[in-house]
Amino acid sequence: MNNFRNDYSDFGSKEIYQEIERIFDKKLSGYGTDEISKEAKDLILREIEREADIEFVSGGTATNILATTFGLRPYEAVLSASTGHITHHETGSIEATGHKVVTLETSDGKLRADEIRQIIDGQPGEIDVKIKVVYISQTTEVGTVYTIDEIKEIYEVCQEKNLYLYIDGARIAHAMAANSSSLSDYAKYSHIFSLGGTKNGAIFGEALVILDENLKKDFRYYLKQRGAMMAKSFLIGLSFKVLFQDGLYYENAKRAYDKSRMLVEGLKDLGRDPVFSESNQVFIKSSPEEIEKLKKENIFEIENAKESIIRLVTNYRTSEEEVRGFLNSINN
Amino acid sequence: MNNFRNDYSDFGSKEIYQEIERIFDKKLSGYGTDEISKEAKDLILREIEREADIEFVSGGTATNILATTFGLRPYEAVLSASTGHITHHETGSIEATGHKVVTLETSDGKLRADEIRQIIDGQPGEIDVKIKVVYISQTTEVGTVYTIDEIKEIYEVCQEKNLYLYIDGARIAHAMAANSSSLSDYAKYSHIFSLGGTKNGAIFGEALVILDENLKKDFRYYLKQRGAMMAKSFLIGLSFKVLFQDGLYYENAKRAYDKSRMLVEGLKDLGRDPVFSESNQVFIKSSPEEIEKLKKENIFEIENAKESIIRLVTNYRTSEEEVRGFLNSINN
Amino acid sequence: MNNFRNDYSDFGSKEIYQEIERIFDKKLSGYGTDEISKEAKDLILREIEREADIEFVSGGTATNILATTFGLRPYEAVLSASTGHITHHETGSIEATGHKVVTLETSDGKLRADEIRQIIDGQPGEIDVKIKVVYISQTTEVGTVYTIDEIKEIYEVCQEKNLYLYIDGARIAHAMAANSSSLSDYAKYSHIFSLGGTKNGAIFGEALVILDENLKKDFRYYLKQRGAMMAKSFLIGLSFKVLFQDGLYYENAKRAYDKSRMLVEGLKDLGRDPVFSESNQVFIKSSPEEIEKLKKENIFEIENAKESIIRLVTNYRTSEEEVRGFLNSINN
Amino acid sequence: MNNFRNDYSDFGSKEIYQEIERIFDKKLSGYGTDEISKEAKDLILREIEREADIEFVSGGTATNILATTFGLRPYEAVLSASTGHITHHETGSIEATGHKVVTLETSDGKLRADEIRQIIDGQPGEIDVKIKVVYISQTTEVGTVYTIDEIKEIYEVCQEKNLYLYIDGARIAHAMAANSSSLSDYAKYSHIFSLGGTKNGAIFGEALVILDENLKKDFRYYLKQRGAMMAKSFLIGLSFKVLFQDGLYYENAKRAYDKSRMLVEGLKDLGRDPVFSESNQVFIKSSPEEIEKLKKENIFEIENAKESIIRLVTNYRTSEEEVRGFLNSINN
Repeated sequence: MNNFRNDYSDFGSKEIYQEIERIFDKKLSGYGTDEISKEAKDLILREIEREADIEFVSGGTATNILATTFGLRPYEAVLSASTGHITHHETGSIEATGHKVVTLETSDGKLRADEIRQIIDGQPGEIDVKIKVVYISQTTEVGTVYTIDEIKEIYEVCQEKNLYLYIDGARIAHAMAANSSSLSDYAKYSHIFSLGGTKNGAIFGEALVILDENLKKDFRYYLKQRGAMMAKSFLIGLSFKVLFQDGLYYENAKRAYDKSRMLVEGLKDLGRDPVFSESNQVFIKSSPEEIEKLKKENIFEIENAKESIIRLVTNYRTSEEEVRGFLNSINN
Repeated sequence: MNNFRNDYSDFGSKEIYQEIERIFDKKLSGYGTDEISKEAKDLILREIEREADIEFVSGGTATNILATTFGLRPYEAVLSASTGHITHHETGSIEATGHKVVTLETSDGKLRADEIRQIIDGQPGEIDVKIKVVYISQTTEVGTVYTIDEIKEIYEVCQEKNLYLYIDGARIAHAMAANSSSLSDYAKYSHIFSLGGTKNGAIFGEALVILDENLKKDFRYYLKQRGAMMAKSFLIGLSFKVLFQDGLYYENAKRAYDKSRMLVEGLKDLGRDPVFSESNQVFIKSSPEEIEKLKKENIFEIENAKESIIRLVTNYRTSEEEVRGFLNSINN
Repeated sequence: MNNFRNDYSDFGSKEIYQEIERIFDKKLSGYGTDEISKEAKDLILREIEREADIEFVSGGTATNILATTFGLRPYEAVLSASTGHITHHETGSIEATGHKVVTLETSDGKLRADEIRQIIDGQPGEIDVKIKVVYISQTTEVGTVYTIDEIKEIYEVCQEKNLYLYIDGARIAHAMAANSSSLSDYAKYSHIFSLGGTKNGAIFGEALVILDENLKKDFRYYLKQRGAMMAKSFLIGLSFKVLFQDGLYYENAKRAYDKSRMLVEGLKDLGRDPVFSESNQVFIKSSPEEIEKLKKENIFEIENAKESIIRLVTNYRTSEEEVRGFLNSINN
Repeated sequence: MNNFRNDYSDFGSKEIYQEIERIFDKKLSGYGTDEISKEAKDLILREIEREADIEFVSGGTATNILATTFGLRPYEAVLSASTGHITHHETGSIEATGHKVVTLETSDGKLRADEIRQIIDGQPGEIDVKIKVVYISQTTEVGTVYTIDEIKEIYEVCQEKNLYLYIDGARIAHAMAANSSSLSDYAKYSHIFSLGGTKNGAIFGEALVILDENLKKDFRYYLKQRGAMMAKSFLIGLSFKVLFQDGLYYENAKRAYDKSRMLVEGLKDLGRDPVFSESNQVFIKSSPEEIEKLKKENIFEIENAKESIIRLVTNYRTSEEEVRGFLNSINN
């Protein structure tokens, strides 16, 4: 079977397990206070080229909860594209902290600076919530990738309107592979962003890069309170250390991205036109009959059953054979 | 000035103050345990023609918080029309309790039974919230009124899908004036509904009629916790007693409704076509210039500045002179 | 029956109803934006002798929720005496907003400055909550009254440790009657405090006096969100206007206090020693048999059933006859 | 250095990594839907000898949040010993979900059945929260271990009073080593309990065993919402599979327990009397001077600085050399 179901089905990069084997008898202190986590943070800081607080978090939903809601006062809200992961894929986790998610319809999963300005300026005052955080995902849930210019413009509106910009970087590595952006770009144009580990070769876990002073203060209290500070946080620290010490983080993403390009090109050659497939998530319009056929040799998810849109995800362990296999089965 | 700003600008019906004067030296027990509240509840029970628990609540927002969220488990959500009062007029009060409000776009402020069934059947499972409460307002925020048949159909879907139907009856009296429905209808076709006092002659306060057994159990704990159980709850009880003992509740609403009809007819005579103005809220499309002119002799709110839609609200104390005054000023 | 059950069993001062009658036909704007509320606020500001934001709130529990939790970040907590009203008399209303109430055992219902300093200095860091708000009640729930010096010392610790001091003034009027303190004292030595109306002659409602800039900002959003901003907020404004325009607020409290002194002196004459009865709440140790006897002609609450401690509350409408009546029945 | 700091400083049992190596190229489905998790659950079910739902959770704090608060209505609360982990070691995580933790002082970290009955029977009604969940930890935070009879009695009170009993089993394995209880005992006498992995050889993660039907229903929605359902949940599943397939879970605990006995016996031989050290946490009264001396060759935490009580924790990887090393350094 060719497996394109998602990018979190593997155990993580083997280099991490080699490192665990090497230091297996070490006893490390808990809750992210260990020396390996320290090394990992220094490696990330080197990449982002500015001062920041970095915390390792157990998973993506927890990361989004923490980053979007930590800086909010009770009546403040989060703005997201209506396709944003936090709106309908995390079981109301933001609302569960007491805060509304205000959504904007978009054509391509991306918020635009001028739309944000407009919605902020049109807020009616105390009878409604007050938006304080802008949530964007890089790459987006529909397969698009923000340019750094687009993010910069959003950031500037946030600065002007006294908002926080949070970039959900669950797939930020794949975005960097797609548009040659660098971590220092994201650190320049956001108040807090996440660095996905789960989907790019870590055993598991995400890193949060906290840039705004107000969000740094006492952040670890919140990390602990929400159950996202792991006793064995060093496992995440070690994953990030291995991923960043020799560029594996970027290599993994490039490998996933290259396979997605191979897939997109192959589909185009077959006369199929993938929609919004700028990174490692490839979406194609299919049909109920074709889906049945494809399922025999391929594993994937159906993004939109009504319109028969399927999603193919590559990751760093996707093989060329799998890509060819899928293209073959669509061609028969 | 002709005042159409809203229906909560007055001190309440003078009959209530007469009753207070009559019993001024009485000392009444607190938190709704007094005998007057008991009498008021009995009067309401007589109208709804079935067994129910009734609680008096300090105000409308509190009433909506209590009624929509009491029965929810952490991951459960509320469904509302996107124009519903709870979505953008109560400062995220539902989300502040930890629950998402899922919204549906409508053409006229009304949810439809089949749309509800569709959204329930299409829920994706544990990655998203699960709708448990359907919120509708009678009358709606855009001026329409549900027929009892429409509510019955919604109630039946709720029964079928194991949902609670809550009817926000802040203006339920005006709905009854408009479509000859009765309180027993609402008690038949909902799990919980509110009976607005504030906008129909009470000094202040609302009544919640709780029909579902699960929502009755321990409800007063929640009333207390949310700060909505008043020490002097007898003030609300007394308002409702006076309003219901001789039909004043209905008379007040009829008076407000009649003025709104006079207004609508007058506007039609002038070639103006009020939109969705089925009850005591009358909406008309105006223009920036006309609005300026109207403001000189009339008080009202602008519902939609971009489209110059203004809102005129009548209540039981609106006079015929005020209606004529407004019609005159629009005609000049 | 001599009624000492509580101080919120009456309709409020008759002067307020006279004022309502006088302006009965006025239409007032909603949600506290009316001119009468403005006048009331100016009258209060005159008393507190400094700049402040003042908001009127529907009731005491709502007031406490708003004042203690508005300024908190998610991991911050409230410190209270274990007898504090918010700990076991408001159904977990503070916790319901997501914040812990840390309690201290006291001998007399009062927190002390040095104990507060000690608990703050001993906090263990991110594994536990961080106290941000100190809650004290004036008068306390056990009948004692803080001296202004005691409050000043607590305030100074709060300043030093970057905490907010909130004074729950549900019975602050009675405290002023008891110890000759003034509203300007409380405004000098707190960040936010409440001015009880319900228990001192208002129809209903409380005033919150907000002194700290951070707590002022956007406070009305929270007031609205928690369902405590009343549509007919002018009723509370009007109560406070009448209470403050000619000193009725102080007169009412004095009247209640004088009756409590009469009661205390009478009890002492009978060889009974009321405990902690420094203000309008008088506590005496009784016995099951005596309680049965007293109940025949008196209404009161049992504070502590196990120890047979009963509570007698006077208010501005308590009569000398009632006091004499109670003393007679205890003497027979 | 002899390391007794805690029992979560290691990478987990090497057998788990051997299993990962064996199946390294497998792609497993996400969020606990994989076949390995299924196998692990079956192995646990075999041990508990009754039907149950089992979910794997990212960490201990998350586990406690989920288990204690899932079944609560808004006004319901949790009862815990004042030493319970949820009271002052998890940053107010329970309160952050909106629920109060009511605490009881105990002499030895254990709740007693009759105390629970007493507190339940003495609840004052709607002015205070209503206890619904009883939280106990096995082993307790002070080093004691409940007997199964004690738990049975607590469970019976919970059944009688319609409460849920949750057993926090972060160190349940060590309890079983200490008192020969079995998982089937805990499954018989609780409504939900956790099975600690982090502290007993798992890479990381805990298992929740859900026995009550009401707590089973839709539990995974809550797991997702609170950010505790891991994309790579199979890592936890695999840990538990390896731990339970050949009894490693029990062996690990026994190894830890045996070292703690060796430590306790050695201390007694030196005339020292460890307090409450019934399992793998050993507490001894020391002195500031001795602590300084011990720190030179040993790593441990200070439980109570004021009283110079130190905590020594053994786990499955503690060596006899470390134990002897510590005893030597205390003897010199």
